Amino acid sequence: MTGYRRPPCLARAGDVRDGARSVITGGYAYAVTTVPDQDRFIAQLAFTLEIDKLKRIIRRNTLVDGSRRENDAEHSWHLAMMALVFGEYAPPGTDLRRVGLMLLVHDLVEIDAGDTFVYDSTAVADQTARERAAADRIFGLLPKDQEVELRGLWEEFEERATPEARFARALDRLAPMLANFHTEGGTWALYKVTAGQVMEKVELIREGSPTLGDYAAELVDTAVARGHLAP
Amino acid sequence: MTGYRRPPCLARAGDVRDGARSVITGGYAYAVTTVPDQDRFIAQLAFTLEIDKLKRIIRRNTLVDGSRRENDAEHSWHLAMMALVFGEYAPPGTDLRRVGLMLLVHDLVEIDAGDTFVYDSTAVADQTARERAAADRIFGLLPKDQEVELRGLWEEFEERATPEARFARALDRLAPMLANFHTEGGTWALYKVTAGQVMEKVELIREGSPTLGDYAAELVDTAVARGHLAP
Repeated sequence: MTGYRRPPCLARAGDVRDGARSVITGGYAYAVTTVPDQDRFIAQLAFTLEIDKLKRIIRRNTLVDGSRRENDAEHSWHLAMMALVFGEYAPPGTDLRRVGLMLLVHDLVEIDAGDTFVYDSTAVADQTARERAAADRIFGLLPKDQEVELRGLWEEFEERATPEARFARALDRLAPMLANFHTEGGTWALYKVTAGQVMEKVELIREGSPTLGDYAAELVDTAVARGHLAP
Repeated sequence: MTGYRRPPCLARAGDVRDGARSVITGGYAYAVTTVPDQDRFIAQLAFTLEIDKLKRIIRRNTLVDGSRRENDAEHSWHLAMMALVFGEYAPPGTDLRRVGLMLLVHDLVEIDAGDTFVYDSTAVADQTARERAAADRIFGLLPKDQEVELRGLWEEFEERATPEARFARALDRLAPMLANFHTEGGTWALYKVTAGQVMEKVELIREGSPTLGDYAAELVDTAVARGHLAP
């Protein structure tokens, strides 16, 4: 077993030391001495710690077993996995790496803006302004080059102008349908959502992937037939 | 608003319909008619639903705010984000896409094998056998080509023989240190972990990334100096 050796460059106690940077960002105190570009590293750390909050943003839908509501971080993980598993149903030539990256960052703005339920038309109305302000703050924690890169992924996802963004959005819409379908209607019943409303989302899925769109339509039909979704 | 239109290919009610496949896998019932290769799609669906269980595998460490323990799915998401943010600290030429994919799948075996606390030497002893059996079952839900691909990512991560695997492992070890550091010792205090034990993990981080290893050593030293980690 390796014993603990105090690095000789560091003093014996206390936080502020010769050569150390004592920096406070977003409530976190760093003392960083060892990296080549300290300001850059501190910005990256601040972002990494800040996005931990995505684990506390609770969505409307539940886990597939219905045991509790899902949070945005685990949802984002599941979508990135779905991009890996269902990638062959994207249009030929779709850059699946970019789809995966978009899905990892697509909900970060909800740390400030909150989860907007897709069937809540009042909340949807000012969603864009709230999320844009959130993007300014959250991606703005990063070094400029990374802010541009990650914010670019989020904006591409939002604009749905590329095959990558449309496929990512399709998975984002399909995932809660799978959870609802396998929990006898789940949030559909709870929030009195109708098949007509769900079919609007199915059209978004179809825009990203005709195959997954057809499958989602079939899920809706089966849920209606089983009495788990109002016609 | 798009009205709900029942697809003409589907019957009016009930689950078993002309031309529909009624298939039950892992407790889930599918009725899939619309995809080109139904067996393949059903296998992909079964895997997608099964891995939802990763959201219920609870780790020892907490969120960065200490509010609750972290689950494996949100942990995996955070690591994939860290690969994106800290990628420049991997050795030159490291394939960061592969690092990200490894991090997405690296804990799936814990659905069956459970989370093994890195400082629990008894549990660590038979971890390999338990996790290998889990990999057989969970990756085995996928179509063969995807089983080989995703299991290959997991095995590469476990073997730590490539720069990608060593960097992925470095992030996997750094993340709980960040959470512990920012919760005044967190699980270090709770499970009476010492700085010497943490420094063994710091060496694993250094193998993947000298820069992140140096930073982790500094975190340990600062935690000891603050009295949040036993020397």
